[in-house]
Amino acid sequence: MSATIDFFFMFGSTYTYLTIMRIEKVAAKAGIALKWRPFNVREIMVEMDNVPFRTKPVKLRYMWRDIERRAGRYGLPFDAPPSYPIEGAELVNRVGLVAVDQGWCPEFGKAAYRAWFMDDEPLGDPKRLGKILLELNKDPEEVLTLANSERFHTKFDDETDVARKLGIFGSPTFVVDQEIFWGDDRLEDAIAWSQVAE
Amino acid sequence: MSATIDFFFMFGSTYTYLTIMRIEKVAAKAGIALKWRPFNVREIMVEMDNVPFRTKPVKLRYMWRDIERRAGRYGLPFDAPPSYPIEGAELVNRVGLVAVDQGWCPEFGKAAYRAWFMDDEPLGDPKRLGKILLELNKDPEEVLTLANSERFHTKFDDETDVARKLGIFGSPTFVVDQEIFWGDDRLEDAIAWSQVAE
Repeated sequence: MSATIDFFFMFGSTYTYLTIMRIEKVAAKAGIALKWRPFNVREIMVEMDNVPFRTKPVKLRYMWRDIERRAGRYGLPFDAPPSYPIEGAELVNRVGLVAVDQGWCPEFGKAAYRAWFMDDEPLGDPKRLGKILLELNKDPEEVLTLANSERFHTKFDDETDVARKLGIFGSPTFVVDQEIFWGDDRLEDAIAWSQVAE
Repeated sequence: MSATIDFFFMFGSTYTYLTIMRIEKVAAKAGIALKWRPFNVREIMVEMDNVPFRTKPVKLRYMWRDIERRAGRYGLPFDAPPSYPIEGAELVNRVGLVAVDQGWCPEFGKAAYRAWFMDDEPLGDPKRLGKILLELNKDPEEVLTLANSERFHTKFDDETDVARKLGIFGSPTFVVDQEIFWGDDRLEDAIAWSQVAE
């Protein structure tokens, strides 16, 4: 039984914008702790031949409109769809793992998604990542060196393995004990489940 | 501006079970009229090469678990996943169009989904359809003859065309003016949109 939610996500997932920007408040209000877990959902999706949007323009258009409406509902800014898909997503996710390790993933997550969604900045670009890190008072060289180290390559693979074994196939996914909830729109279901499970 | 929601769906869609069983109450509570519109979402999905579940066992397993949990949340029965996909779905959808034409689609919709989800009855089987129709005090032969007539074949194609032009790609989808909301979990968003739009 658990009052912790494991929050599996990948920087580069579009709907994850909605979650990154609101999950802390929602969890705090419910008295639930969060474990932030960046993983490589793209790898899992490729394995499953799961291509929900990239090759489907009608669904892609709907997705952006849905995100825009949902952002409005949550009081989050949304001007126009940013570039998608993003290049070099692995690096930003490994930076996320360094941030988890050092305890500043929520701040980094919000800053990174703000850069992507508000300023349409190429998230995977090490220079742009450096700028975000500086804004958070981190040493870009130190963090990027760590993110490129074998340790965090392995960590990324390991977290992806954990997700795969749990049956996770999308981002964001919330895990309460062994129960998985996929999609920003299931965050409230995960919270409710976690409270019943206690 | 609109206080009507166009409810596009296909008999054979799994998540549509949740919607068929609850939409009347939700709409009535909000003072919103419903237009029931069976259409051929499968045809549109094939055109888009959109295969969300059939070839993806991990997602399929998740889907049933998600439907089970959501059914629990709505107080709807759910024992075990019924047979899927169903065969002969076109006929039951054309019967749905006859029911729309004659004003008894909500009752038929619930009876058909109950037969599929509760009793795991093959929905596309004309004999089973006849039994459902008898329970609703309809003349099976008369209804099935109509459903197999050119008029309702054409109607099914026409409704599918309307859906395609609106950018609909899944079932259920709710349309408020030109705005489309996909998925049982967007019903409340569609209701809210419809109320703002008035």
